Amino acid sequence: MEFIKENCGIAGVFRHKDASEILYLSLFSLQHRGQESAGILLTDGSSVFFHRAQGLVSEIFTPEIIHSLKGNCGIGHVRYSTTGASNEKNIQPFSVEYKGKTLAIAHNGNLTNSRILRTKLEKQGSIFQTSMDSEIILHLLVRSKGSTIKEKLAHALRQLKGAFSILIFTENEIIAARDANGFRPLCIGKLDSSYVVASETCAFDLIGAQYFRDVEPGEMVIFSDNGIDSYQWAEKTKKAHCIFEFIYFARPDSYIFTKSVYLTRKNLGVNLARECDFDGDLVMPVPDSGSIAALGFAQEKKIPIEFGVIRNHYVGRTFIQPAQKIRDAGVRIKLNPVSAVVKGKDVIVVEDSIVRGTTCRNRINSLRTAGAKRIMLVISCPPIISPCYFGIDFPSTQELIASTKSIKQIKDFLGLDGLHYLSYKGMLDAMLIPGENFCTGCFTGKYPVKPDTMFNKYQWEKSHGCDS
Amino acid sequence: MEFIKENCGIAGVFRHKDASEILYLSLFSLQHRGQESAGILLTDGSSVFFHRAQGLVSEIFTPEIIHSLKGNCGIGHVRYSTTGASNEKNIQPFSVEYKGKTLAIAHNGNLTNSRILRTKLEKQGSIFQTSMDSEIILHLLVRSKGSTIKEKLAHALRQLKGAFSILIFTENEIIAARDANGFRPLCIGKLDSSYVVASETCAFDLIGAQYFRDVEPGEMVIFSDNGIDSYQWAEKTKKAHCIFEFIYFARPDSYIFTKSVYLTRKNLGVNLARECDFDGDLVMPVPDSGSIAALGFAQEKKIPIEFGVIRNHYVGRTFIQPAQKIRDAGVRIKLNPVSAVVKGKDVIVVEDSIVRGTTCRNRINSLRTAGAKRIMLVISCPPIISPCYFGIDFPSTQELIASTKSIKQIKDFLGLDGLHYLSYKGMLDAMLIPGENFCTGCFTGKYPVKPDTMFNKYQWEKSHGCDS
Amino acid sequence: MEFIKENCGIAGVFRHKDASEILYLSLFSLQHRGQESAGILLTDGSSVFFHRAQGLVSEIFTPEIIHSLKGNCGIGHVRYSTTGASNEKNIQPFSVEYKGKTLAIAHNGNLTNSRILRTKLEKQGSIFQTSMDSEIILHLLVRSKGSTIKEKLAHALRQLKGAFSILIFTENEIIAARDANGFRPLCIGKLDSSYVVASETCAFDLIGAQYFRDVEPGEMVIFSDNGIDSYQWAEKTKKAHCIFEFIYFARPDSYIFTKSVYLTRKNLGVNLARECDFDGDLVMPVPDSGSIAALGFAQEKKIPIEFGVIRNHYVGRTFIQPAQKIRDAGVRIKLNPVSAVVKGKDVIVVEDSIVRGTTCRNRINSLRTAGAKRIMLVISCPPIISPCYFGIDFPSTQELIASTKSIKQIKDFLGLDGLHYLSYKGMLDAMLIPGENFCTGCFTGKYPVKPDTMFNKYQWEKSHGCDS
Amino acid sequence: MEFIKENCGIAGVFRHKDASEILYLSLFSLQHRGQESAGILLTDGSSVFFHRAQGLVSEIFTPEIIHSLKGNCGIGHVRYSTTGASNEKNIQPFSVEYKGKTLAIAHNGNLTNSRILRTKLEKQGSIFQTSMDSEIILHLLVRSKGSTIKEKLAHALRQLKGAFSILIFTENEIIAARDANGFRPLCIGKLDSSYVVASETCAFDLIGAQYFRDVEPGEMVIFSDNGIDSYQWAEKTKKAHCIFEFIYFARPDSYIFTKSVYLTRKNLGVNLARECDFDGDLVMPVPDSGSIAALGFAQEKKIPIEFGVIRNHYVGRTFIQPAQKIRDAGVRIKLNPVSAVVKGKDVIVVEDSIVRGTTCRNRINSLRTAGAKRIMLVISCPPIISPCYFGIDFPSTQELIASTKSIKQIKDFLGLDGLHYLSYKGMLDAMLIPGENFCTGCFTGKYPVKPDTMFNKYQWEKSHGCDS
Repeated sequence: MEFIKENCGIAGVFRHKDASEILYLSLFSLQHRGQESAGILLTDGSSVFFHRAQGLVSEIFTPEIIHSLKGNCGIGHVRYSTTGASNEKNIQPFSVEYKGKTLAIAHNGNLTNSRILRTKLEKQGSIFQTSMDSEIILHLLVRSKGSTIKEKLAHALRQLKGAFSILIFTENEIIAARDANGFRPLCIGKLDSSYVVASETCAFDLIGAQYFRDVEPGEMVIFSDNGIDSYQWAEKTKKAHCIFEFIYFARPDSYIFTKSVYLTRKNLGVNLARECDFDGDLVMPVPDSGSIAALGFAQEKKIPIEFGVIRNHYVGRTFIQPAQKIRDAGVRIKLNPVSAVVKGKDVIVVEDSIVRGTTCRNRINSLRTAGAKRIMLVISCPPIISPCYFGIDFPSTQELIASTKSIKQIKDFLGLDGLHYLSYKGMLDAMLIPGENFCTGCFTGKYPVKPDTMFNKYQWEKSHGCDS
Repeated sequence: MEFIKENCGIAGVFRHKDASEILYLSLFSLQHRGQESAGILLTDGSSVFFHRAQGLVSEIFTPEIIHSLKGNCGIGHVRYSTTGASNEKNIQPFSVEYKGKTLAIAHNGNLTNSRILRTKLEKQGSIFQTSMDSEIILHLLVRSKGSTIKEKLAHALRQLKGAFSILIFTENEIIAARDANGFRPLCIGKLDSSYVVASETCAFDLIGAQYFRDVEPGEMVIFSDNGIDSYQWAEKTKKAHCIFEFIYFARPDSYIFTKSVYLTRKNLGVNLARECDFDGDLVMPVPDSGSIAALGFAQEKKIPIEFGVIRNHYVGRTFIQPAQKIRDAGVRIKLNPVSAVVKGKDVIVVEDSIVRGTTCRNRINSLRTAGAKRIMLVISCPPIISPCYFGIDFPSTQELIASTKSIKQIKDFLGLDGLHYLSYKGMLDAMLIPGENFCTGCFTGKYPVKPDTMFNKYQWEKSHGCDS
Repeated sequence: MEFIKENCGIAGVFRHKDASEILYLSLFSLQHRGQESAGILLTDGSSVFFHRAQGLVSEIFTPEIIHSLKGNCGIGHVRYSTTGASNEKNIQPFSVEYKGKTLAIAHNGNLTNSRILRTKLEKQGSIFQTSMDSEIILHLLVRSKGSTIKEKLAHALRQLKGAFSILIFTENEIIAARDANGFRPLCIGKLDSSYVVASETCAFDLIGAQYFRDVEPGEMVIFSDNGIDSYQWAEKTKKAHCIFEFIYFARPDSYIFTKSVYLTRKNLGVNLARECDFDGDLVMPVPDSGSIAALGFAQEKKIPIEFGVIRNHYVGRTFIQPAQKIRDAGVRIKLNPVSAVVKGKDVIVVEDSIVRGTTCRNRINSLRTAGAKRIMLVISCPPIISPCYFGIDFPSTQELIASTKSIKQIKDFLGLDGLHYLSYKGMLDAMLIPGENFCTGCFTGKYPVKPDTMFNKYQWEKSHGCDS
Repeated sequence: MEFIKENCGIAGVFRHKDASEILYLSLFSLQHRGQESAGILLTDGSSVFFHRAQGLVSEIFTPEIIHSLKGNCGIGHVRYSTTGASNEKNIQPFSVEYKGKTLAIAHNGNLTNSRILRTKLEKQGSIFQTSMDSEIILHLLVRSKGSTIKEKLAHALRQLKGAFSILIFTENEIIAARDANGFRPLCIGKLDSSYVVASETCAFDLIGAQYFRDVEPGEMVIFSDNGIDSYQWAEKTKKAHCIFEFIYFARPDSYIFTKSVYLTRKNLGVNLARECDFDGDLVMPVPDSGSIAALGFAQEKKIPIEFGVIRNHYVGRTFIQPAQKIRDAGVRIKLNPVSAVVKGKDVIVVEDSIVRGTTCRNRINSLRTAGAKRIMLVISCPPIISPCYFGIDFPSTQELIASTKSIKQIKDFLGLDGLHYLSYKGMLDAMLIPGENFCTGCFTGKYPVKPDTMFNKYQWEKSHGCDS
């Protein structure tokens, strides 16, 4: 899997004395959901403390900083923002001053009517700091009618279209909410006598919390000194969980949408083995994303699994691209084939998905150089043919290899001796929840929510700058 | 002079190909008006580029950064913000996204009705990012009625009370404006066929521009591709230039309010000599702020001038305070007495002003240790007895030594053999413009504009954080 | 495997136009051999260029730095220095000025007579900059009799005892040499028409070089403009390759001592399976060091392999240790159990080795918390009972769990239901070269070379400082 | 004065509990003697602590670092190293490990037989880390015969030729020594019951120490737990104090060679006034180096002194050179003329010296642009026609404007209406010690010590690198 960037992971905690540490560890667990920037914001009841910066969680949050972030209630965020120099303004949690108080939001997902909302708000006199959807939500909240935060937020959320799992921070409560379709995950845990919230349950494992339940689609859950309060702000509608969370995004040790990612992925491998008649000397995953499907595939096929490529753990984010002459280095830097394993062998490579195909082609080529005789590639999902409007940063349709090439053409482009994609039915059958509860738009082009017609043409980003 | 912090210096340029360099050099020249943070924002007509950071201009703006700031129109700012961890959000120029365009402001001065305006705006649904007055001005601008930017800005400015010299940046024009009383300076220059704007004319010297004229009190000057356009947005009223700009703030090589700072300061020294009957072996300035008045004083008195203390140019902003034992080091680090000059002598020390008196006392003490026999201190302005509401960060009235002590008590507190303050009349007579055109509130407690009653009690700052 | 720190990896290149890039990529490949500091030093024939710093290769060497390192001949080094603040002086390559030329060394291994040599040199007037063995080698070289560098170096090397794979840089040649026993690996490759040298062949894969041959024990290989010249400086003696390189240190995709690390490690797993009668629901590795032995074990046992713990790739080196209350976080940060996989199961965990046992105990505990029913641990080498004098930074004998506890006691300490170590014979049988060619001192306490009696008591380090 | 770089300032302290602070403040006072790097090294009797880095004292030494430098005895150094990327190795104090102890040196001056000594040492087997003379001294010390440190050091010093004021650090004593001619200053002070040493007495002012006496030419002073011990290691010879220390280098508030720098400089101005028949409207110094001579000149001439140029205190070391178009900015950045003062006036400018003349020409030009009518320049020393071999980094003879141009030609080159240099006799008469006690080689080409013939051709510097 290559080039796919999830937008965000979010975490929250209400009234726990180790709040900054809990948020730090939670974000650390959710790092795979966004590696570009991170932030934590919390309150001790009288002041608000925050730190937001570009970089990995483990780099940004030094012990001094964690220590300086006082408080027992707060929210955090990891982000993979799209390109552009103006990223620094877009780091979350996003906060504003309102009536002498701090109001903040952490958001995972994508609104599909953001342009319409923004234009409307500007007509009413609002001015914006950032190009983030999240800022729109706060503007709507502040302008909403209603006597309670619950009513005001419900009023705001009902104006939104698209995908959003959010955490709202006021100085008195933390509110977790999900869109009506439940595109992105959001889980509640218990730690000691406090509540925690996170995009995935792997965060709970790290902090020693117990999984309690999911925030439901269309629900908001309010954590305050009055306890936990639930409110169904949207009418029940069709569920549309992102199936790609199971295929690639989520960590295998997480439960999302209440089910195990690991077991689902292994099922994908098993179904793939059943559908595909390839034979070979060994099965090998593209680590780490193809590893678990490869296990299922190998066990079902009764072909030995081998680690035919070794992943280098020291790849930093600023790795220098070597000169043209040093061929293959760009690929081998991250994944180096083990020639002692693949030389002269017929190998079946298990990969989770193909997006553009260029990285994949380089990897196949590097395997060939290492001496593999025949190379067959099996993919644990169907061809990706359509973009995502709900938070996954797929490239445009034209760049998706499967939208413009036939399976035969892809096989030739990648230089393979065999290529098999898991069928649509095979994918749905592997899931531990009914297939109709998923958004599978990237595989079918059919979306549960129609995006704003102006959605794609719209470009907010114009500034190139730096605040530091 | 000690502990006084001016709030800001501002600069702008319209349609010059070296815009980023011009703003950089201008801010560098205005560094004495604010050393805590600086920022430049400009546009090349299609994109907006900016850099804002804490630190000195020469530290923040590396050649790479200056080079990356493309464009030919822009504004810049240097700031001495008040204390608190939330400074980073308050760096100017402050910019927002509005209808797909960037709108920005650079501001020198202080509004006296900010609390009232802010509360009113929040009631209408505005949310704020910062605690800066400047943000209020943009909110008012965006909400103003009017078909042109000129009308809209005039409508906004008419709601403001207090001191403001501002630069407004839209992607098509730069607008310079001053409050109706003209508290803070703002000058227009010409460079090649372009216009530049700066708080003081010393910026024009550095970039090789010619001084053109001042932005008048109550005027806005619009620089656009239609040329330069002037509009008197406020009715004519009494002028109230800050007299302290002449006494201490402005650079001696600048002209402000159309007059030479150097010549004014020398006059202050001459008048001081005429009023005061001290005699001594030598006259010595407290460098650099007392240097020019000392020249006038010595020439008028016909007593030789000597450099009795030497200023160390390597004092950084993070200088370590030495242990108690190493006496005097804290004072001598910056100014070391020359014992070869002062030993056994009757010295007349010329200082521009006294605020709290504590630094002054340490300096007198250090001169005494170096062997001075008799020490007489003369001050080139009257006693400061009242705070400033228009942009100077004086301490509270209680901390102003002259508000609680008599001249005799101050002399004793400072350990002097003689102390003479310039008279109020002597100060006004030294000015090159009529005395009634000044705000002298810090010396009299009488202010040209009445501040908002809630002004002093109000505290916006509650967050402690860091964006980086 | 825990707490073991190899001292170094080294790399060299002679006359290749992309020399700095080649060294950079080679060091990157050898990063697992030392993560504390790295350095590159090269020459373009007229000047010498270098960069040495603390940190990971990918962090230290920015594109600008790589570009500034001009030249076509050079050497590089990655290091895991022992603790202490004076590390910065000890970064390699270590270089000196001698007769107007630069002489430098990169060294992997440990001398066992360094104290004796050092004392002798000081008596003769030598003064030392560092506490590194490597500096001694240069002093001996400079003082050696002989008309050629070959003779002088041979004379110097014959005075050394212990383990050393070294690269010597003069401005005209690169010389690769190994101690007479061949403790540490050192391989020669060919790239285009140039020679490259590296600790392991994985470096050659990355730069696209072909493995040529090993530098032999007791050999020095001189790369100069006269081509490649070999000289056997020591008499043939018993080989003593470090067997731990195969068990843990070397990368699985490398060949060292001419054999595949991957295939050797898989054999270790197979032999372990044959020796051990444990049964279970699944076999799981402790990633990544136990992964390949686990494959061999699972295949031989015909028990399915599962990834029962997931490795987090974002663990930085400055990770904050959470408060005591957040139990298990310290362990789970790096390796999180997959409860969906292990809950209620009898699991056989494959680990490469146990040193102190404390980390291992925490991991077992964390598996138990995740729901594993029975946990059996199998180790792909015998108990480690004795320190290493030849370059591996094992703890002292007392801290080695197997030197003070019986297998039964270790099992109890770790909280296991079963524990099995690979037998000494099983380990040697798994090797692809004869058992007598290895140093197995850490398993037996019998060493091929007797260390200097003062070796352990000696402490050079006294300074605490920082050059930057 | 332009482009002249003194090599170093040194400071030491023996047995004072605030040793790190004392060295920090001393180096801070001596910052004008070297701005490129600084270092402190001290001992608490059991360990040695140090910090050395590039940058200003106030930047390098944070409170944390000062706090971490434990000990009561130590030495410090500020340096202006010559160009080249290998500067970092050359930061002082330079230290080595010898027989398990630390030996260190801080050095001000230049040896003139360094090449001969170095070659001889290398023949005996010494290897060098740096290109610094200082390293040679330590090698000689270590190899010297003698039973005491006093004898050994005397033996080493007798082999040196040229200029050196040094501090030697052993773990038990601090030794201060000067060459036989006493080229560079070195003063002893008393603080509480401890001794301190520094290049100039201004350091004593800052730490509150009392000046005690100078280290004499040819003397070494040993500070140990046995008290203070003096030893005349060289026979008495002609004194040769650097006269340029009085003219430019030393701080005006210092006493060096027992005399006041301020009073000497004022005398230079007085003598200049007596020799020169220029008349004008005002006298103005080039600040700060010409300021005191200008005072003397103006008082003697009875022409008013004015500050015709203002110095900007915010000029950092990395100031960006503006584009060609923005004329004069490069000059005005540091010194801006005050047009209100100079416009239409005949001005006499007082400068301490001229080296290349290029900076001076730009300044004269910028004064002209500001409106000065006639500009006469007077220089408070004779023409510099010859290089310095004893520690001042003058450019080569060819680059010294006075070595290739007549006074008339220099006047024309600088664009002046008048130019007068102080006569040689006028300079000597201004001194407070007899003229024969000075080295005046830069004005006469006659040197008290003949430099090594190879001195100028020799280039040790070949490496370009960076340790960090």
